[in-house]
Amino acid sequence: VSEVRLVPLATSTMVHKGDDLTTLLLAALGDAGETLAHHDLLIVTSKVVSKSEGQVVPYDGTDEHKVAIVEGESVRVLRRRGTLRITETRHGFINANAGVDLSNTDDGTAVLLPKDSDRSARRIRAEIARRTNLEVAVLITDTFGRVWRQGVTDVALGSAGLRPVLDLRGTFDANGRLLEATEVAIADEIAGAANLVLHKAAATPFALIRGLDESFFGPGSISENIVRSKHDDLFR
Amino acid sequence: VSEVRLVPLATSTMVHKGDDLTTLLLAALGDAGETLAHHDLLIVTSKVVSKSEGQVVPYDGTDEHKVAIVEGESVRVLRRRGTLRITETRHGFINANAGVDLSNTDDGTAVLLPKDSDRSARRIRAEIARRTNLEVAVLITDTFGRVWRQGVTDVALGSAGLRPVLDLRGTFDANGRLLEATEVAIADEIAGAANLVLHKAAATPFALIRGLDESFFGPGSISENIVRSKHDDLFR
Repeated sequence: VSEVRLVPLATSTMVHKGDDLTTLLLAALGDAGETLAHHDLLIVTSKVVSKSEGQVVPYDGTDEHKVAIVEGESVRVLRRRGTLRITETRHGFINANAGVDLSNTDDGTAVLLPKDSDRSARRIRAEIARRTNLEVAVLITDTFGRVWRQGVTDVALGSAGLRPVLDLRGTFDANGRLLEATEVAIADEIAGAANLVLHKAAATPFALIRGLDESFFGPGSISENIVRSKHDDLFR
Repeated sequence: VSEVRLVPLATSTMVHKGDDLTTLLLAALGDAGETLAHHDLLIVTSKVVSKSEGQVVPYDGTDEHKVAIVEGESVRVLRRRGTLRITETRHGFINANAGVDLSNTDDGTAVLLPKDSDRSARRIRAEIARRTNLEVAVLITDTFGRVWRQGVTDVALGSAGLRPVLDLRGTFDANGRLLEATEVAIADEIAGAANLVLHKAAATPFALIRGLDESFFGPGSISENIVRSKHDDLFR
């Protein structure tokens, strides 16, 4: 049975600028009693990436300041309602409030999205390979709203070592007919899966995903394979 | 460690109208060597639900007929591109081609969405309780496209025994501050997670999810808790 396991990885460290996430991640794995293996996938939530990279700005606690920070992180505002902004960030992500985070932050600060989450994922993956000689995949995740469906889900902001979209076009169904609509955004499905074991109120910034099909591993990035160009988008 | 396991459940049976999915599901569990337990969650992909309920119509293989079937299943067309239609179904789902499925169908047929997936999930859950005396959750899933992000993901069409949206508002973060944006659509995260172990080209219509937090279990339905009303929707 090709079973997949989702394992939360906690840490007692509050992350600050300059902290080494790879060290924290490997320590959290050890604390959970897990030994890293080939074709493991490691989830790193974006907030600790942002904090370690210093993507933190002063925030005075007012709505006006919040909106100013959000609009400063945006290249375009799609919708406004009260102080809520649905915007497109310079990365091409469309989300509420440009991913600017006011929870689980140090007092008087707001946390922005990482500058380049694919690059951050590649760095962590390379550092893990250097220290362990293992080829794993790394996914940086954050919480986004959706249109048409209630509630938020975690999605992938950055990846390394994973094919973010699995292209099943050209393969056949159980009746021997060509499959359609089969570019599966596994990066986002994995991000959402990991969120099932993260606990927002506790310090669980990492997760281990083990048992993914080996076809999932390979080249690609979220910016190239998941972010939809405006040209292809029927809803922009 | 509160680990979650995702286990694919295969069957060699091609499902047709009148087939009993609960029998197939329990047999597939046995074949996988799993014994059902309290607070397990069972995934049933919508296509076998539709087939067992006779939600199948003749299809002559032409684009014109496909569009006619899709528009017949829709209450509103949001976008058109070639023969692609993004529509709202009578259930309130917004998806490509109203979820009408032309892969893995019998020759000369198209498979429609289940009439009421929440009801189908409740029936399967009740039948499992009757036969096993166990309280499990049941999720009926299908593959949907998204706006702004490439690739499709599996989402929940119907549920029973699960709180589709976990409301964390009013809980506190690790610094003691109130969390925001914390209605988490766990039903859709679970549906996407399950898709990681399903194999579109093989007959794997079911999956077992074990180890979900007990707070996930409770009342609710996809139509009530996930489908966003037009009034609340900034993008309709």
